[in-house]
Amino acid sequence: MAVNHLCQWQYLRFQLSHPSAPACRYLSPSRSKSSTSSTAKVNCSAAPSSSPMDSHNEGRKKFMEFPYASGPVRQLMVDLVSTVENTLDSQLLPCTLPPDVQYYENQNGTAQASLQIRSGLKSSLIDFILGSWVHSELPTGAALNITSLSAYLNSSTDAPNLLIELIQSSPSSLVLILDLSPRKDLVLHPDYLQTFYESTRLDEYRQMLEKVPEVRPYFSSSLYLRCVISPSAIMVRVDTETETGAGESTRLDYIITNHVHPVAKQVIGIWLNQCACGGRHVGESDKAYLEKRDGLIKNKTIEIDLGSSFPRLFGPQVASRVLGEIQKVFTA
Amino acid sequence: MAVNHLCQWQYLRFQLSHPSAPACRYLSPSRSKSSTSSTAKVNCSAAPSSSPMDSHNEGRKKFMEFPYASGPVRQLMVDLVSTVENTLDSQLLPCTLPPDVQYYENQNGTAQASLQIRSGLKSSLIDFILGSWVHSELPTGAALNITSLSAYLNSSTDAPNLLIELIQSSPSSLVLILDLSPRKDLVLHPDYLQTFYESTRLDEYRQMLEKVPEVRPYFSSSLYLRCVISPSAIMVRVDTETETGAGESTRLDYIITNHVHPVAKQVIGIWLNQCACGGRHVGESDKAYLEKRDGLIKNKTIEIDLGSSFPRLFGPQVASRVLGEIQKVFTA
Repeated sequence: MAVNHLCQWQYLRFQLSHPSAPACRYLSPSRSKSSTSSTAKVNCSAAPSSSPMDSHNEGRKKFMEFPYASGPVRQLMVDLVSTVENTLDSQLLPCTLPPDVQYYENQNGTAQASLQIRSGLKSSLIDFILGSWVHSELPTGAALNITSLSAYLNSSTDAPNLLIELIQSSPSSLVLILDLSPRKDLVLHPDYLQTFYESTRLDEYRQMLEKVPEVRPYFSSSLYLRCVISPSAIMVRVDTETETGAGESTRLDYIITNHVHPVAKQVIGIWLNQCACGGRHVGESDKAYLEKRDGLIKNKTIEIDLGSSFPRLFGPQVASRVLGEIQKVFTA
Repeated sequence: MAVNHLCQWQYLRFQLSHPSAPACRYLSPSRSKSSTSSTAKVNCSAAPSSSPMDSHNEGRKKFMEFPYASGPVRQLMVDLVSTVENTLDSQLLPCTLPPDVQYYENQNGTAQASLQIRSGLKSSLIDFILGSWVHSELPTGAALNITSLSAYLNSSTDAPNLLIELIQSSPSSLVLILDLSPRKDLVLHPDYLQTFYESTRLDEYRQMLEKVPEVRPYFSSSLYLRCVISPSAIMVRVDTETETGAGESTRLDYIITNHVHPVAKQVIGIWLNQCACGGRHVGESDKAYLEKRDGLIKNKTIEIDLGSSFPRLFGPQVASRVLGEIQKVFTA
């Protein structure tokens, strides 16, 4: 309860300093060298230093450390999270998750995870943004590292959501999912396809990555996930041959830094400009449709992605606590 | 007009001999060695030998010859067309297309094509089945050969449609599209995904082909086409290294005979059993939705696939005649 009160206080403090929730604007790196760079400060870090606030800052700090990710993945994620948060600054509430959901681990200490969810102001187009990392030692001696950032818009707009996920199960392989997920049936709405996918030439980024010799299309084992993504979704597996010793740069590092990072930055730029800040509003009649479709995707996400893997990695008690909090945000 | 009268006569003759339009039943090769084999007779061939009928039989015969396809592609297509037609025998009307649409070519004789469309009886679940081949000499000296078979169900059922297309632009490369195309938004209808895609384990056939070393996923340049297909669609490109002399069997021939053909036969078996003969009917409320969605796909198919390539290959006059006839069937 203390946590919730504090976050409500943070919310009030935010509202007082941002009375009119100004519209966002993302300037892509090619157009501006402003605060959208990876070194930009993250909103939550400006909170005053009291004890419950410390516990929140602690969760936030741990999240942004990406302690188990490789250098290039960490740089990519910090850059993306900072870019999204700085652009949407005035529309996001602080994370209100309990500290033991912001950071949690399994009983024998072989799996750790961090979760940050920041809801959007009611007056904005943002439902919430969700960032997470999961680390787990594997029986093989290798480690599984998943880092992700997703952003869901609310039913005031039908613009696509954002999803990026990097899954690494060895130093030489990576699965990348990067997409602006459509919120309408594209078969029934070719104008929507035209606006968000054809005009934005999103497929060119998929094609750019496809040209890297080690990059292959990736097919998720979940048919439902394959339905949820757009036709220009980047779902690729990168398998490199060389594994080098600790501290040495690998071919995979090179690909992440020189191919994945710039592509992800561009795609996120398109999402910020055309979707989150695009100002595309829908009428009342579309809202019920969007709420139903979004709701189904969220439920299925929990069922498929989180419901099965979380209990296995963290045990039923921790999984239930974390999924319960996610469910609260999903159904808010 | 004579053509239409003749086909109406054929229709009447059909109705007299099949008063109750019995339900279809497909027995897969593993279950039966009955008339579903590739050697089975095709319905239209039983028509009496009069002059207008001859012109129809001529179109039909030319279609089934697949004169420009390689041996393995011809065997595959004859087998598939025969299997579909024999199973749906009692529910299909004869092809009523004018002879110059059943077979046509461009002015300088460098491109030829054949088209067969057979509508389903009103009492059946079949809207129509469409088979075609297109051959065109390329400026490079090579030839483009496209063979396809698609089957559209009507709005009495929401079961998926069938699509198979083989595109060959050299003796060593092939693009294969094989899918049961969904007729509902799978995101909104996970039960539909479960019934037609997860329970039928369709993705296993995609995985089987993916294991062949020369097989790579294929991405259509049309984002709309990528939206129309199912999550277990087989969209692959096969590129082999060896080209042998005329008459010699190639590695691509081997792959078509031993991998593509059996997979296509199995997938078509699933479509016949679960979709065309599955007996899944929908209520009145769903019909309008299906008609709208199906109609949009048909319009887009003409616009994207046919509208652009047909005039280029056959000139505006022939293209307009052929597309006009297809449009009539699409909007019937």
